[in-house]
Amino acid sequence: MIENQIFTKSIRYIQRKIKDILDKVSQENIDKVKDLFFNSKRIFVYGAGRSGLVAKAFAIRLVHLGFQTFVIGETITAPVQKGDLAVIISGSGETIPAVMTAEIAHNLEAYVISITAKKNSEIAKFADITFYISSGCDEEERKRYAPLGTLFEASVWILLDGLIAYLLDSKKETEEVMRSRHATLEQ
Amino acid sequence: MIENQIFTKSIRYIQRKIKDILDKVSQENIDKVKDLFFNSKRIFVYGAGRSGLVAKAFAIRLVHLGFQTFVIGETITAPVQKGDLAVIISGSGETIPAVMTAEIAHNLEAYVISITAKKNSEIAKFADITFYISSGCDEEERKRYAPLGTLFEASVWILLDGLIAYLLDSKKETEEVMRSRHATLEQ
Amino acid sequence: MIENQIFTKSIRYIQRKIKDILDKVSQENIDKVKDLFFNSKRIFVYGAGRSGLVAKAFAIRLVHLGFQTFVIGETITAPVQKGDLAVIISGSGETIPAVMTAEIAHNLEAYVISITAKKNSEIAKFADITFYISSGCDEEERKRYAPLGTLFEASVWILLDGLIAYLLDSKKETEEVMRSRHATLEQ
Amino acid sequence: MIENQIFTKSIRYIQRKIKDILDKVSQENIDKVKDLFFNSKRIFVYGAGRSGLVAKAFAIRLVHLGFQTFVIGETITAPVQKGDLAVIISGSGETIPAVMTAEIAHNLEAYVISITAKKNSEIAKFADITFYISSGCDEEERKRYAPLGTLFEASVWILLDGLIAYLLDSKKETEEVMRSRHATLEQ
Repeated sequence: MIENQIFTKSIRYIQRKIKDILDKVSQENIDKVKDLFFNSKRIFVYGAGRSGLVAKAFAIRLVHLGFQTFVIGETITAPVQKGDLAVIISGSGETIPAVMTAEIAHNLEAYVISITAKKNSEIAKFADITFYISSGCDEEERKRYAPLGTLFEASVWILLDGLIAYLLDSKKETEEVMRSRHATLEQ
Repeated sequence: MIENQIFTKSIRYIQRKIKDILDKVSQENIDKVKDLFFNSKRIFVYGAGRSGLVAKAFAIRLVHLGFQTFVIGETITAPVQKGDLAVIISGSGETIPAVMTAEIAHNLEAYVISITAKKNSEIAKFADITFYISSGCDEEERKRYAPLGTLFEASVWILLDGLIAYLLDSKKETEEVMRSRHATLEQ
Repeated sequence: MIENQIFTKSIRYIQRKIKDILDKVSQENIDKVKDLFFNSKRIFVYGAGRSGLVAKAFAIRLVHLGFQTFVIGETITAPVQKGDLAVIISGSGETIPAVMTAEIAHNLEAYVISITAKKNSEIAKFADITFYISSGCDEEERKRYAPLGTLFEASVWILLDGLIAYLLDSKKETEEVMRSRHATLEQ
Repeated sequence: MIENQIFTKSIRYIQRKIKDILDKVSQENIDKVKDLFFNSKRIFVYGAGRSGLVAKAFAIRLVHLGFQTFVIGETITAPVQKGDLAVIISGSGETIPAVMTAEIAHNLEAYVISITAKKNSEIAKFADITFYISSGCDEEERKRYAPLGTLFEASVWILLDGLIAYLLDSKKETEEVMRSRHATLEQ
């Protein structure tokens, strides 16, 4: 019974750090981002590993909201063009595929939003807006209760779900309309 | 040097059986299928395992041709509606997800094309057009040189590439136009 | 500036509901689950849509912890056998692929853990342990700030990250060991 | 009736060119490759777009043959190590992710097999064995009947299926044993 205190301590630690991180998100950025979504032709999302899963979860909701959305790396995608928006999630902000994706999208005159845990990262150079998702941590505690990119990934997941609620409200739509855009043949 | 005759015998056997199978494909069906592609709003493809990979390869080319295409089971998909077209590839024609997908699409009044190696299979009941992809084989030879669904999958891959050439010609488009629809951010 | 209060209200709402949900998770179940992980030969995870992404995020960490893990539906998988463990995430607990996966795994004498938001759901019938992930909500509030499965998915993500911390501690391993099992060729 | 001659001409053209291409495959390379498979600890495959689907189809059969196999870019993968084997499929042989994957694997002292349509390509520099998959073509004919990478992809698909038959024979196994390694929970 005592042993599983690790589980309880971990989920409490993760929740506490998510709060710290999200409390620091710039409100001004959120408004600019909302405008970018409504002023872009199409949305592209990218991430690798668990960040890629967070990107896909966001993409699914964007489809539910009626945005034309593509996941970079999936079977069905499209060439990025001027006026599109690319959302790139990379904890390190330095991995080559993420930085290349940002650079190419930027050079094609698409808008770029980067979400990263690293200040002054390479990826931010090509981004119109960067969300800096991080929080000071005691490293011993973090490694034990939230190893590797755990805090970054969970925080970005919730950040993007909050953005979905904001976009839903801005479109004056409802959960029912979202549901009607849900896949009927999903396996 | 003698040992690898198995490799040479296998690729020759596969090529010979692909020819036997594709020579039997109904020309009439090909014309009907072409019309369905141009008369449908959106294209959905489905397959499991290696058949799913064949379906995805087809979907990539459909996107290059400008068809709005979705891969069932991927992150980005959409609800099937009346007037859409579902292409379902299933060697056995009997697996539950494939049959369910065909049935749901049929009930929603989408067109259904099934591609299967089994005559009178369950999936064909829900299909407007069925391609029967099979050939009489000496089983000992087949098991050795083309185990499991190998002949079905390779034949369907080439069948669908031939259909792409036909659709390309019908659209009066060129390879260059297809290339312009190719993803620029592909990882 | 006032408009984006929806964003802030949403992320606070989501965090508050996650806390409500996770505070109710059975500690006893967590201990039983930990034992199942150490007593199983291989781990299989399954989910559809956004629940599938949560399942994959969990699978990545299990690989980092050295568990032999498979994602049902991916290219590389394996036949489930007696003594394996299947973790199945389904908000509704009633979708046919999820229930079928649970039933087949159960019949093959694998252990089954189901994670669902629906009490007495079909999937729970085939599960050795079921996590019931839900919380009473004001429906108007929930639809606006956390539409569709948002609360379920985010709560399960954190629940499973807490379980990873617990497994890490039980194995007496460190973040560094996890990192050494991280893919070096990840795109 | 006349119109669909394009379909028939295309599938015949594709089959004829596949034969030209595969007739030129080095038998010596096939033997070396077979030895690499049996002398490697684990197999990694990589490709982008349709080449990636060909790589995955190969990976599925390798699993059926009992090789421990990973698809680079999928959820479940592993760090490449000395003594592993990486099979990299890239028509151009020059795309950055493919070349980087080859270079990293080579530097980690894994064996590298590259399969490409371009002579003296960048990727070949990092490969222990390179399959050069190409054939002289009348470009007008090729663009019409087999646009983009069609000939490369179909030829590699069959090449690798031939290699599977060879590995199956070398292992003295049967189709039935392969089937027993087939996923039981495949969606």
